[in-house]
Amino acid sequence: MPGIDHPAAAAESLARVRGSRPLVHSITNLVAMDLSANVLLALGASPAMAHAEAEVAELARRAAALMINIGTLSPDWVPAMHRAATVARAAGRPWVLDPVGCAATRHRGAVAKELLWLGPTLIRGNASEILALAGRRADATHGVEAGDTVEAAREAAAQIARANGCVVGVTGETDLVTDGRRSLEVAGGHPMLTRITALGCALSAACAAFLAVEADPLMATAHAFAVLKVAGARAAAGAAGPGSLRVRLLDEIYGLDAAALRAAARIR
Amino acid sequence: MPGIDHPAAAAESLARVRGSRPLVHSITNLVAMDLSANVLLALGASPAMAHAEAEVAELARRAAALMINIGTLSPDWVPAMHRAATVARAAGRPWVLDPVGCAATRHRGAVAKELLWLGPTLIRGNASEILALAGRRADATHGVEAGDTVEAAREAAAQIARANGCVVGVTGETDLVTDGRRSLEVAGGHPMLTRITALGCALSAACAAFLAVEADPLMATAHAFAVLKVAGARAAAGAAGPGSLRVRLLDEIYGLDAAALRAAARIR
Amino acid sequence: MPGIDHPAAAAESLARVRGSRPLVHSITNLVAMDLSANVLLALGASPAMAHAEAEVAELARRAAALMINIGTLSPDWVPAMHRAATVARAAGRPWVLDPVGCAATRHRGAVAKELLWLGPTLIRGNASEILALAGRRADATHGVEAGDTVEAAREAAAQIARANGCVVGVTGETDLVTDGRRSLEVAGGHPMLTRITALGCALSAACAAFLAVEADPLMATAHAFAVLKVAGARAAAGAAGPGSLRVRLLDEIYGLDAAALRAAARIR
Repeated sequence: MPGIDHPAAAAESLARVRGSRPLVHSITNLVAMDLSANVLLALGASPAMAHAEAEVAELARRAAALMINIGTLSPDWVPAMHRAATVARAAGRPWVLDPVGCAATRHRGAVAKELLWLGPTLIRGNASEILALAGRRADATHGVEAGDTVEAAREAAAQIARANGCVVGVTGETDLVTDGRRSLEVAGGHPMLTRITALGCALSAACAAFLAVEADPLMATAHAFAVLKVAGARAAAGAAGPGSLRVRLLDEIYGLDAAALRAAARIR
Repeated sequence: MPGIDHPAAAAESLARVRGSRPLVHSITNLVAMDLSANVLLALGASPAMAHAEAEVAELARRAAALMINIGTLSPDWVPAMHRAATVARAAGRPWVLDPVGCAATRHRGAVAKELLWLGPTLIRGNASEILALAGRRADATHGVEAGDTVEAAREAAAQIARANGCVVGVTGETDLVTDGRRSLEVAGGHPMLTRITALGCALSAACAAFLAVEADPLMATAHAFAVLKVAGARAAAGAAGPGSLRVRLLDEIYGLDAAALRAAARIR
Repeated sequence: MPGIDHPAAAAESLARVRGSRPLVHSITNLVAMDLSANVLLALGASPAMAHAEAEVAELARRAAALMINIGTLSPDWVPAMHRAATVARAAGRPWVLDPVGCAATRHRGAVAKELLWLGPTLIRGNASEILALAGRRADATHGVEAGDTVEAAREAAAQIARANGCVVGVTGETDLVTDGRRSLEVAGGHPMLTRITALGCALSAACAAFLAVEADPLMATAHAFAVLKVAGARAAAGAAGPGSLRVRLLDEIYGLDAAALRAAARIR
């Protein structure tokens, strides 16, 4: 995508998040709630967590964007997810599907598929999850994906994006964002970031905040990915381990300035 | 309230919390559990989290105080909240209602109202929540309340306190505590504290600990507010961002000594 | 147990956890999820949290070990716990029962007992919990157990271990691990560790990771206890309070090297 200064555009998106403080409604897993809410607050967005079927429709309509993550499913959460997604779509709000662990059990695979039918704006997952959504099996062991798995996931991402009219973001050592026609890669980050739980889930929440302020979902996703990769690399540089990395990550997201982001973002 | 050395009284309350380690039963939201338990432990209190209807009555009776927070409602949690509140009240235990987000959806508004009818000792909320409880609408955007919203919330707080025979604590840049006749203001804190999720919820849990050791709920609430504001300001002074602020806040609560609290508490 | 260099064996177990990255399925309480997952990741293991009855059997079978913790029970979680434990046992996977707070309410006591009947490999609790499982009452106040409570818990642990053919680990100032015939003590740690919520729960998850890589459950448990005690003491040495202690603990677990563990582990 020549002619676009992606790092500068990412800095502008971040400024818009900070300026407009979008309300992001999240129905997310029990492990990820704390970090997701804190990442949204550090970004300047406003988190709202709610999963009761009795209130999700009202909140999904009021919020600027919605994020649904299936990491720790409870039976009564699934209809609430359906309802929130349906209302968000009907109201023209962007919504993100994070199909955490959809490769791990048939139940999650089925729940992820049904949510996919409700028309997410963005699907954000790792290579195994995106492959599973496309009906293929990953050979990933312990989250470390072999090169051919990554390649297969890229093809699957483009196929899912075209078939569903959405954007697919595949995170890994280098992230891929595609809408089936256009695609962007986001490089950077740090290996120690895989040692913090729920960081991918928090990234999905961050994507929702960027989708609320940037009309092109491909760009919005790449910008959110770049912000987390840059802040993550800066945080890792001085971290003694994953405990301090998580603390420093929130500080870096909060303090990230436009110049630093423009200088370090690697989007192409 | 002339004639009372509030900072010295706050230091005495804190010493009593540390000395008697009150068991605080919390039925709180999924986002706030970790921070609330850690704030209680840092204060010297003993947290107990339980929401199953089958066990809340037994725990509410055993505990020194109860805190109920409606931040992330599940259908089966509501009857458990009713049961716990009813038992706590019948047993003469103080209990705190934190009506998180009751202005956000009709469902939460209704749940908050029904809990209000069960006679909380203290209601702790922000200006929008207190206004919503009083049946009025806030013009708050993104948690930043306009001056007239704050003024209206103060009137609503006094009205709710008188109508329900309870104390109402309204947190904001300056906190207000009122029982409808007497009122106290607590100043201090730091703006960055609004960038940590669940801090208000954790404060409500802290209030329950202070209610367990101080007979006058107006005083107990003001003391808890002052401890969090002083520790929060000290924590913010050296924080690089919200990640380190949260870590330092727990350290400051844990290490806060009587002299520092007396010197810095601004209660009047 | 003469003739065994326990610290060296603990270092070997830790190396095996890091090398094989065992998948640990946890059905744990809402307060403990974040810390448990982060402790597992810092150790080098792979956490999977799932509690839906529709998927626990599949996950329990796939995982290398299972951990069940009853800290915040919901009605629909209990049958899922039964199902996961039954599948894990049938598949020959080790599983850990953490009967958090089973002394606090009759409901938890009953749930803990029924899980005990499903044949855990290891039961990990504090003195009060182990006494309650044995049908006795502790005189513990606020988690500080009197000397005679600790002594009684040791007898109860050996009795439970023999009656159920399992290992029982009792944590406290000095930890005890027993299978009813053999027993080991693990010393070390730091008093400030009691001021962090869910650390015992996270230790139970760590035990599951060690059970996945060490055939003798008595040894595996002692090794996990020693790793947490050594990392905890190192973390506490430079901590300003419980906030930084928790951060430093994850860093120390992540960075703990074999030589440091061998030098500091006190298992006998």
